[in-house]
Amino acid sequence: MAPILLNCMGNDRKEYIEQTFHVNNPYLDGMEEDILYHFSLGTKTHNLPEMFGDIKFVCVGGSANRMKAFAQFIHKELNLPGSTEELKDICEGTDRYCMYKVGPVLSISHGMGVPSISIMLHELIKLLHHAHCRDVVLFRLGTSGGVGLAPGTVVVTEKAVDYSFLPQFEQVVLGKVIMRSTELDEGVSQELLQCSKELHNLPTVIGNTMCTHDFYEGQGRLDGALCSFSHEEKLEYLQKAYEAGVRNIEMESTVFAAMCRVCGLKAAVICVTLLNRFDGDQITSPHDVLVEYQQRPQVLVAHFIKKRLGLIA
Amino acid sequence: MAPILLNCMGNDRKEYIEQTFHVNNPYLDGMEEDILYHFSLGTKTHNLPEMFGDIKFVCVGGSANRMKAFAQFIHKELNLPGSTEELKDICEGTDRYCMYKVGPVLSISHGMGVPSISIMLHELIKLLHHAHCRDVVLFRLGTSGGVGLAPGTVVVTEKAVDYSFLPQFEQVVLGKVIMRSTELDEGVSQELLQCSKELHNLPTVIGNTMCTHDFYEGQGRLDGALCSFSHEEKLEYLQKAYEAGVRNIEMESTVFAAMCRVCGLKAAVICVTLLNRFDGDQITSPHDVLVEYQQRPQVLVAHFIKKRLGLIA
Repeated sequence: MAPILLNCMGNDRKEYIEQTFHVNNPYLDGMEEDILYHFSLGTKTHNLPEMFGDIKFVCVGGSANRMKAFAQFIHKELNLPGSTEELKDICEGTDRYCMYKVGPVLSISHGMGVPSISIMLHELIKLLHHAHCRDVVLFRLGTSGGVGLAPGTVVVTEKAVDYSFLPQFEQVVLGKVIMRSTELDEGVSQELLQCSKELHNLPTVIGNTMCTHDFYEGQGRLDGALCSFSHEEKLEYLQKAYEAGVRNIEMESTVFAAMCRVCGLKAAVICVTLLNRFDGDQITSPHDVLVEYQQRPQVLVAHFIKKRLGLIA
Repeated sequence: MAPILLNCMGNDRKEYIEQTFHVNNPYLDGMEEDILYHFSLGTKTHNLPEMFGDIKFVCVGGSANRMKAFAQFIHKELNLPGSTEELKDICEGTDRYCMYKVGPVLSISHGMGVPSISIMLHELIKLLHHAHCRDVVLFRLGTSGGVGLAPGTVVVTEKAVDYSFLPQFEQVVLGKVIMRSTELDEGVSQELLQCSKELHNLPTVIGNTMCTHDFYEGQGRLDGALCSFSHEEKLEYLQKAYEAGVRNIEMESTVFAAMCRVCGLKAAVICVTLLNRFDGDQITSPHDVLVEYQQRPQVLVAHFIKKRLGLIA
């Protein structure tokens, strides 16, 4: 069988709409049952087309509390009937992830790091496939460390890059390393940037996002349990990242971009910066300031969704 | 500064007891305040020596619910006063991890995958340092896929190995890849194996544990959203793993072993197998069977702790 390497799908919208099946696995449709173990859902135990068939927007983020708050927020923004108190965690049978459905919007938590979001994405993409969803846009709404930006700035990712600032994701398949492209959809990013201009208090830039596999040594923090480099070496690395177009650092964007691309799903990464890493490593802003920062990607994506749904001009 | 590479600490117990400081970061003690962000704890806001100074055993596992259940279980096993209902999540200010203290035992969740447990370990090791803890043993209690073992078998890890079956962990530091050894403490493993023989219904083996960065392609599953290999190629990879001494596959052991080793902390990995990967990929056992399997590492480690505390002979 041909390996799944760089995805060759065009950006042409017509071609995208005709892309019904997102999965890239010849075995899947031959399975008698597919248990989405980490969602506590399955094709025999749940009517996935009925539950999820109308999904058009999937918003994912690390924290379960934050993605519940987003579900409540988008419920209000879309003026949907019923109380936000009634929103039920669809994955209540497990504590690995939480999931809320609000009209055509799905809000899911993915934990921290590439492996954690990767499990969620495999099962989400299978869920969208089993539910016969079409023309879905995915958003990662996250927090990040800023590189040369004022705290609170929202970064819409142009390219998700690895520790060497390259737009690629290393995937191990049966003991062999393959590379996948991590380019994201330019149209969606530009549309998000335009949305930010229509909103107050939403400083937004488009830039590259560096994805690391840890929070301390990989991001050049001096405050971990382990640190083997100097302050100067740290600043030098961050400066190189800045020169390569990196504007923020987080821990999930490369695999998110790579998997969405391979499966022909349009996707964007929108992360707020909680600090400027040139100024320090610790997140010291007061709780209420951090809470407001974390709402910014939500406000931006809610505006995008409302425009796409024709609720605002 | 010298890079932190392979750890050279001996296994001699006397040497270990004299190892008071676990961190390996010259900047840490010069910091005015250390905010353990993902625990929602800090050196200025919390009296860490008072809260944690008596900790001797730290038990970590992926699932928050499971680690709460373990805290309740060990509370009963140690015959401690008070109700298990009163156990409070020490990290209630955040939903990244949960943490419970039960006498000398700390129970913490770490989410899924190397990056997620790595953040937790950095902050845990700093916490133990700030709290002046000594002579602490760490246990990872997890679930895993078995390789050639009956489901429900407990594997105590001899070596945590990567996708090429080598006992090493790749850590990126400022854009450079360094290798760390992932050997675990042989004495603790043998003590755990001995404990398993003193208990009923606890089939236990010592074997190598392969740590991957995803659940599907990296583990050779045919049921992910992406699959580019055949059933035969999958079995061939699992057979090679078996021949290299791998008895189970999970997603956190290499970084857990590597960080504990660098910091001079004795550590063990104890995972139950939920299925035999030679027989399939999906976890299809009934819920109550899986629940009982997941209790096995807890029962084993509780027995170890009770023996160490002199509560049983």
